[in-house]
Amino acid sequence: MVEYKVDVDDIELTLFELLDVGQLQALPRFAGQTVEEYRAVVREAAALARRDLAAINERGDRVGAHVQDGRVKMPEGFREAWRKLNEMGLTAMDLSPDHGGLGLPSALAAVVGELVMGACPSLSAFHLLTHEVARVLEVFGSEAQRRDHLARLASGAETGTMCLTEPHAGSAVGDIRTSASPQPDGTYLLRGTKIFISGGDSDVADDILHLVLARAEGDGPGTAGLSLFAVPARDNDVRLVSIERKMGIHASPTCQLAFGEQGKCRGTLLGPRSQGMRCMFHMMNAARLAVGQQGVAIGGAAYEHALAYAKERTQGGSTRIIEYPDVRRTLMTMKAYVEGLRALVLEAALFVDLTEHHPDAAVREAHEAYLGLMTPVLKAYGSDMGFKVTELAMQVFGGAGYTQDVPVEQYMRDLKAASLYEGTNGIQAMDLVGRKFLRNRGEHLNRYRAKLAASLEQAAREPEAAPLAGKVHDVLQRFAGAARTLAERAGGDGAWAGLAATPFLRALGEIMVAEVLVRRAAFAGRRLRAGAAGREKLLQGKIEVARFHVSQLLPGADADIARVASEDRSALADVL
Amino acid sequence: MVEYKVDVDDIELTLFELLDVGQLQALPRFAGQTVEEYRAVVREAAALARRDLAAINERGDRVGAHVQDGRVKMPEGFREAWRKLNEMGLTAMDLSPDHGGLGLPSALAAVVGELVMGACPSLSAFHLLTHEVARVLEVFGSEAQRRDHLARLASGAETGTMCLTEPHAGSAVGDIRTSASPQPDGTYLLRGTKIFISGGDSDVADDILHLVLARAEGDGPGTAGLSLFAVPARDNDVRLVSIERKMGIHASPTCQLAFGEQGKCRGTLLGPRSQGMRCMFHMMNAARLAVGQQGVAIGGAAYEHALAYAKERTQGGSTRIIEYPDVRRTLMTMKAYVEGLRALVLEAALFVDLTEHHPDAAVREAHEAYLGLMTPVLKAYGSDMGFKVTELAMQVFGGAGYTQDVPVEQYMRDLKAASLYEGTNGIQAMDLVGRKFLRNRGEHLNRYRAKLAASLEQAAREPEAAPLAGKVHDVLQRFAGAARTLAERAGGDGAWAGLAATPFLRALGEIMVAEVLVRRAAFAGRRLRAGAAGREKLLQGKIEVARFHVSQLLPGADADIARVASEDRSALADVL
Repeated sequence: MVEYKVDVDDIELTLFELLDVGQLQALPRFAGQTVEEYRAVVREAAALARRDLAAINERGDRVGAHVQDGRVKMPEGFREAWRKLNEMGLTAMDLSPDHGGLGLPSALAAVVGELVMGACPSLSAFHLLTHEVARVLEVFGSEAQRRDHLARLASGAETGTMCLTEPHAGSAVGDIRTSASPQPDGTYLLRGTKIFISGGDSDVADDILHLVLARAEGDGPGTAGLSLFAVPARDNDVRLVSIERKMGIHASPTCQLAFGEQGKCRGTLLGPRSQGMRCMFHMMNAARLAVGQQGVAIGGAAYEHALAYAKERTQGGSTRIIEYPDVRRTLMTMKAYVEGLRALVLEAALFVDLTEHHPDAAVREAHEAYLGLMTPVLKAYGSDMGFKVTELAMQVFGGAGYTQDVPVEQYMRDLKAASLYEGTNGIQAMDLVGRKFLRNRGEHLNRYRAKLAASLEQAAREPEAAPLAGKVHDVLQRFAGAARTLAERAGGDGAWAGLAATPFLRALGEIMVAEVLVRRAAFAGRRLRAGAAGREKLLQGKIEVARFHVSQLLPGADADIARVASEDRSALADVL
Repeated sequence: MVEYKVDVDDIELTLFELLDVGQLQALPRFAGQTVEEYRAVVREAAALARRDLAAINERGDRVGAHVQDGRVKMPEGFREAWRKLNEMGLTAMDLSPDHGGLGLPSALAAVVGELVMGACPSLSAFHLLTHEVARVLEVFGSEAQRRDHLARLASGAETGTMCLTEPHAGSAVGDIRTSASPQPDGTYLLRGTKIFISGGDSDVADDILHLVLARAEGDGPGTAGLSLFAVPARDNDVRLVSIERKMGIHASPTCQLAFGEQGKCRGTLLGPRSQGMRCMFHMMNAARLAVGQQGVAIGGAAYEHALAYAKERTQGGSTRIIEYPDVRRTLMTMKAYVEGLRALVLEAALFVDLTEHHPDAAVREAHEAYLGLMTPVLKAYGSDMGFKVTELAMQVFGGAGYTQDVPVEQYMRDLKAASLYEGTNGIQAMDLVGRKFLRNRGEHLNRYRAKLAASLEQAAREPEAAPLAGKVHDVLQRFAGAARTLAERAGGDGAWAGLAATPFLRALGEIMVAEVLVRRAAFAGRRLRAGAAGREKLLQGKIEVARFHVSQLLPGADADIARVASEDRSALADVL
């Protein structure tokens, strides 16, 4: 069995100290909860991940899910692991206790998400989707839908899926052709084919609830005519057509499903009619954050394996390879992205809590706007840089990293999906530039920038962070300048937005990582000066990695800013 | 069968026009040859690659090589494909006709190398290694060794291997323990274990010639005590221990071999005793160029597939995805790296011809020095950027790219090995900075820089290239400044070299790509103005992609220059 390695110290420092998740206990929703209780959840989830989930990960890859008698058969141990995970209530942690949940913060649920993903990416697909489906039902479901499904989703007795994509409708959701015909009893009969449905069939649980995006009869074309439907798999006209052969996550069956081939696929409308996109986006935003977190989770596991190997492997006599500066540089690069992105993902999860449960509407609205910007960045930059981390981990292992004696090649294959599903990273970049930046005339970005600037100003009060904060602030200013230039140009010609989208997202991602690492360096400096017995190396590491990022990685943001500001339009030339 | 797609027009334009390979016909070695003859070789090799090699590529991945009765059994079709390839003389093209070769330029052999690699990376490992082993024998072999093996290698009747790595000796070759004991008849008895031996056993041919790095009895420690031995596999005490389970190139068996378990493994000294590293490096330099070329070959195939898909796939009604600016940007990025690196790899191969066959010693020596610098850059930057291209290709395909319905995920897995074998890319960076830059006090780099600067100056005479050439020249100047800073610091403390090695290599790689694209843009501009009937789009594409690179990709070099010049040493802090 391959060990699952994760830096729980960094997780705890981030959640409990840097982000101070305990602040949530001042909100009515979380009143009476304690940080000790949260710490116990982290400890128990980490133990489960290291023991039960890590145990099935390699087998999941080598054996994979396969089709037997028209049903998906999962590799041995997956059903049992799913049961254990749900016995601990880990799928529905942040659902209300009224709905079978534990009523804990989403920030804590996000930590559990990392642990499940890092230990077994394939199983985590079930965890993630079942969680998101339950959350959509909690918000939009009718009383009957909640009663019939929430407790079963929360206990893991049924799993959930999102059914958007069709063979001809991928990124362009508006092209969906699946139809829903209203019946006299208020239900709908669905008909259509969906592809790329993660967990579309399996035997980890006894039933599946599909959330299906379809067009109700008589509704118009495009995304505005789409509604969301809850479609139970059991005793219904839903057929598994096939599963994909994929690069990785072999134990996460990616299914093609045929709904209503016999005209008998029954579903119920979920949320208001023709508001399917809004309901789906509620789910999709959370799913996008979780996909970005896969970069942290799997990249983080790869980093820990590479670090351990570098400390133990000798080359050239008794020199351990960690002593070579180029190897140290590689490890510091990995550390910067894993820890920086981890802090950002957990902060985003904390913002979900504030958006949903803060009594002050202005606070809720402000954090919702932050999340709107952060979500596409974390989805795309998190998955891309997490993948980069797995690549670097393989380099540390050398040739051995390419073999299946080491888990890194599986991490790499499993993680690659994250840049593709829930909207490719190109789609994320266009969402950021189009919907989140240009559409509100840069107002959301300005507010988020002001927040970053204020945080840097505060960090600058600590001597360890002051010179770093100044440099990050300068880059942030240059980014703002390029963003203004882009906004002016894009008003005249929309192609500018598409040309600049990818470097725009990357630059913002790099700056966000820099800000949070500098903020953490300031925090670590304060703690060190207060005397942090026994944690000196841990805390000093937070300062050093911020220095490393600002001098060695942040320069990449300036390159991307130059790309955004460039007047070049050669990509549009008719030469391809 | 998955189609192999390659841009033969770009290859021909590069080889015959931009690099003017016909110039070689002025050298005695190539006298009497014609460009028409060369063109015929390219056409025939491309046809073979598209037909016979592409046909076995997917099966090679899915079935893989496996061990049966202690021997490696290759997937169906590999032996036949190997035979066809050798019937055309494609393995020994640039060997002297005296030794069974065709006496053609290495630059032409490199084109064939790309076609074989792109169509079937696993088979190309046999092609590459057999070619390199034959070339080492041609230079260093005794008359008997040449007589016994050269014709057989050239005809493909035997394949070749390089046996360096041992379980405890990877990057640190000096730690090798395999021993060679001299016998009264002049042969040696070898004893030791070698790992990661590509093609260490197979049934594509009837015999294998292993080149084994070992320490002759009585010779000293470290690399200086190593000698190279020719060890035939047949009727010898060489046992296949196992093959690796790997991420990709499943039909390139990576073997662990035990030499002399029964004390009866006979070999003969190849080249002078204790000069094993020098002989091996002769081979390894060529192999490193070929590994860098895998980035061009496999990345190039991925690019062509993505381009074709983008032109055909619609999203959002009838919009083809190639019309989206972000997709065009992605495709232009791929085009820039594939075409730029292809031109550099072929230029390096041309320099091999000049180094080996030019009558003027000064010319030979100058090109050898260029090659010394270019080799680690092309190995590392070629494999890394080629891999990046496969990643981008997958993004163009979206979710479909992650499935095995599309060849891209196999390309990605197959290509990943290139950043690891023949010395990891970190080792290449240290080779560049240590051996190729600092050791000769920057003299080789200065000469190479002067060559780049002269080329840019010439390109600046064409209106299309002039503004681009100026920008590249400025970056080159800044790179030179950072290099000087590094040299000064590294004199005092060697750690600076290791800290800066990776960004140093990347910056130089990016500048080299920029220079060759700008040189080509100048050429294309001249041709266009001279009236290039029917080739307008092809030639205009060369100008646009140079513009794209200089404005959109070259800024990355400045980020790397900032990293090299940075005074930051946080990676050395004791916090990992």
